[in-house]
Amino acid sequence: MSEPIDLRTALASFDALWSPRIAARVNDYDVRIAKVAGEHVWHVHADTDEFFLVLDGELRIALREAAGEREVVLPTGSVFVVPRGVEHRPSSDGGASILMFEPTGTPTVGDRHDPVPGHVDATTGHPLG
Amino acid sequence: MSEPIDLRTALASFDALWSPRIAARVNDYDVRIAKVAGEHVWHVHADTDEFFLVLDGELRIALREAAGEREVVLPTGSVFVVPRGVEHRPSSDGGASILMFEPTGTPTVGDRHDPVPGHVDATTGHPLG
Repeated sequence: MSEPIDLRTALASFDALWSPRIAARVNDYDVRIAKVAGEHVWHVHADTDEFFLVLDGELRIALREAAGEREVVLPTGSVFVVPRGVEHRPSSDGGASILMFEPTGTPTVGDRHDPVPGHVDATTGHPLG
Repeated sequence: MSEPIDLRTALASFDALWSPRIAARVNDYDVRIAKVAGEHVWHVHADTDEFFLVLDGELRIALREAAGEREVVLPTGSVFVVPRGVEHRPSSDGGASILMFEPTGTPTVGDRHDPVPGHVDATTGHPLG
């Protein structure tokens, strides 16, 4: 990346939901952006944490932890890290735009997951533009 | 981090300039937030890229590249990665709030730098709150 990228412009360049675009690379990590609405799928990343920043809208992340199931709510401008090994399912009733940091090659549906519905893109991220 | 963090609230919890707070950990990386104004110092990270996202205000990053010196301008909502090995100097005339993603332990002034002025905090990041 030799020039800065405006995230609003980048987000306007695609419509697909739950289908992250790689906005930047930082060492062997991706900075991915995605538009989301409705429910993703329960999945787990065995070997990596996953960082979420909500750029617009509201994201919910359901978590299956040792203590039981709960859901965290992320309004615009908030961040959360899902620890490795924790089964989770992002969702957004009203739609959201999000930014994620995770190791390059991390699949969106994790290493283990429920059956992937048609509206969820099982990918390691697409190039931007 | 067991609960989401609101970045606006987190930024309101400190005043120091050029003195990053660690908002989250992702594997062996930090998500750091900082308030900045004026000039940082020319420095270089030999072994790591450095990711910048401007949350508020405008950031400039001067770069000394093989082709010569130039400056990139990052308005609110834009991102940029300074590649490892590239000498750079962030600045902000009007002040800005930024988010950075870099390996835990990365010093703010790099591995090699000009004399550090008093207003720049040479740190690997402070805990939040």
